[in-house]
Amino acid sequence: MLNFTMSLPTEVCFGKDSIDKLAEYINKFNGKRILLAYGGGSIIKNGIYDKITAILNANGIFYKELSDIKPNPDISSVRDGVKIIREHELDFILAAGGGSVIDACKGMAAGAVYDGDPWDFYLRKAKLTGTPLPVGVILTLAATGSETNWGSIVSNAKTERKLPFRHELLRPKFAVLDPCFTYSVPAYHTAAGIVDIMAHVFEQYFSPTDGAFLSDRLSEAVMKTVIHYAPAVMADPENYEARANILWAGTLALNQILTYGKMTDWATHMIEHEVSAIYDISHGAGLAILFPNWMRFALDEDTQPKFVEYSKNVWGVSADGKTGFEVAHEGIDRTTEFFKSLNMPLTLTEAGIDGSRFDEMAEKAVAFGDLGSFRKLGKNDVLEILIMSL
Amino acid sequence: MLNFTMSLPTEVCFGKDSIDKLAEYINKFNGKRILLAYGGGSIIKNGIYDKITAILNANGIFYKELSDIKPNPDISSVRDGVKIIREHELDFILAAGGGSVIDACKGMAAGAVYDGDPWDFYLRKAKLTGTPLPVGVILTLAATGSETNWGSIVSNAKTERKLPFRHELLRPKFAVLDPCFTYSVPAYHTAAGIVDIMAHVFEQYFSPTDGAFLSDRLSEAVMKTVIHYAPAVMADPENYEARANILWAGTLALNQILTYGKMTDWATHMIEHEVSAIYDISHGAGLAILFPNWMRFALDEDTQPKFVEYSKNVWGVSADGKTGFEVAHEGIDRTTEFFKSLNMPLTLTEAGIDGSRFDEMAEKAVAFGDLGSFRKLGKNDVLEILIMSL
Repeated sequence: MLNFTMSLPTEVCFGKDSIDKLAEYINKFNGKRILLAYGGGSIIKNGIYDKITAILNANGIFYKELSDIKPNPDISSVRDGVKIIREHELDFILAAGGGSVIDACKGMAAGAVYDGDPWDFYLRKAKLTGTPLPVGVILTLAATGSETNWGSIVSNAKTERKLPFRHELLRPKFAVLDPCFTYSVPAYHTAAGIVDIMAHVFEQYFSPTDGAFLSDRLSEAVMKTVIHYAPAVMADPENYEARANILWAGTLALNQILTYGKMTDWATHMIEHEVSAIYDISHGAGLAILFPNWMRFALDEDTQPKFVEYSKNVWGVSADGKTGFEVAHEGIDRTTEFFKSLNMPLTLTEAGIDGSRFDEMAEKAVAFGDLGSFRKLGKNDVLEILIMSL
Repeated sequence: MLNFTMSLPTEVCFGKDSIDKLAEYINKFNGKRILLAYGGGSIIKNGIYDKITAILNANGIFYKELSDIKPNPDISSVRDGVKIIREHELDFILAAGGGSVIDACKGMAAGAVYDGDPWDFYLRKAKLTGTPLPVGVILTLAATGSETNWGSIVSNAKTERKLPFRHELLRPKFAVLDPCFTYSVPAYHTAAGIVDIMAHVFEQYFSPTDGAFLSDRLSEAVMKTVIHYAPAVMADPENYEARANILWAGTLALNQILTYGKMTDWATHMIEHEVSAIYDISHGAGLAILFPNWMRFALDEDTQPKFVEYSKNVWGVSADGKTGFEVAHEGIDRTTEFFKSLNMPLTLTEAGIDGSRFDEMAEKAVAFGDLGSFRKLGKNDVLEILIMSL
């Protein structure tokens, strides 16, 4: 078990009608002039936009809007947001949406206190030195974990890059999580969100660190919850209990509580970022394709015990009369079946992606060095996983 | 799943040599003139006192000391602390110890900004209105959870009361958790701490709330960790991995992460407080006696499924060919056996306590109303549990 520090200052307000406290939270963090940022308009259709603006108006809170932030958000949205913030001297960013909107808002929060181009942070050409603008979140999708964590992942369509930027000061000040706000999420995006949550846990669970027993059991708790409720939420999108548990699982999967005391991996996410930087594929779908293949690639004599633990504790695979490898493969196959049951694509081919740009993707994936820690991946390893995923 | 808010601002610094950051943390929270509070002197014997004072001296931090805070801390210690704080105009409290020291320090933190007697807070005669003094913690015992939570439990020897006082502002600012600092904890106190951790989880796990699936799985993760490492830590007190996992389990067992979305019970704790308010028994030993009996008392047709869940998920009890009650009893019996394996007393008689004051204890236990939520307990129910525990 490794040393760690824990600090989870984001105030989470969870449950039905929790948006009623929105003005109170904005006030607590001194929001006077707000940027209200959102995506393609689903919050207008499902009425969340009206709820938010009614609260802002009723409380006399000045706001400007930035809409149309795309999935795999582009740096151009971040630049647009910074421009509006400067033009209207805004002092608070309210992100209403899922991971893409939140991540773009974090980029704006940092960009607003930086003279250069915010893309510099993602390129690791600039470090955050000032205090970023405070960000509050109204979450509308169970997936990202970005609502309470320190990361932001943004794409650059022009250079076909998708890069992370992390800083403790990027954590949102508050996050409003109402399971009912996820009722209208379409089946495909619900499924992609579920895969994303599972993938976040995988990146922390499959670790070279021994002896972080409690963190591993917590990871299993999150995975079992997602697996337990996935059929219910796919069959009945307005099942409150299922939506609530999956929403909370999404937050805990990536607020660091599963990471304490461990090294993490994140190789598969880095590979997926190269895929979705070039092709129009949702992050969750990309992960559904890549993760089982990463597992098959990573499985060897050394890593086998961890996969056996996964198979037994998460999927309830019996080890009776089987070799470790058989048990491990059974868990990996169950993972594939689970993603299939969610109607996720299982191959890149199925998602309309061929191998023509694999070399370029693999090259970019290792641009900052080898990937992963559970299994170190060089360029050729990344290539092999991509080929396995065809 | 019920609505909830989450805020875990305490900064935890976990791991070997994490005390090296002490001055940095004190500085971060503007500690200039410090009250260093501790217990009966074990920190002097094991060298932790020297480490702390060396850091304070090296950094020119002014401090005064309050020692000899007893287990089941008495309100007189809290009053003494407030007096020293006022006399020397101290602005920060550093609690070096386990739950008793931390709880007493929280009482001082509130008492320092209140004109009346700090016992008023525990009697619910006064409400905290000012901002209490900041508290930092050097934890030396895996048990309490008080290092990151909002509660303080203090006794009054004169009136034979032991009462809780809770306030969000009582959460410590930081907590230094070094597993090595728990190496010298004697076997009896290590065992009592393990029982205390299990009991904290029980109070949250056995809940009338349906559908807080994830919180229940997280509770099981903590219980499984404690059960897994208890034999190792009893056999080898300097087993870092075991000490680390149990220490971290103790914090997560009572920082609210297991409570979110649920009603909690706390009846058994309230009963135990009446026992240890009168008799000289450690909190953990009292809980080891009372909890299995509470379980047997609480088990009925309605509550049986929850006990079955406990037996299967925590103890791996097989349900094959058994009735629900049989499975439930097996889990309860395993609990008793576990406490027995830790050499904890299993009856009040064994702990030198007879039934002569049961009526008075039961009366006091329900002084603020019926106890519990999983199973509501009136005075006669408390009496019955006490008699079962003889």
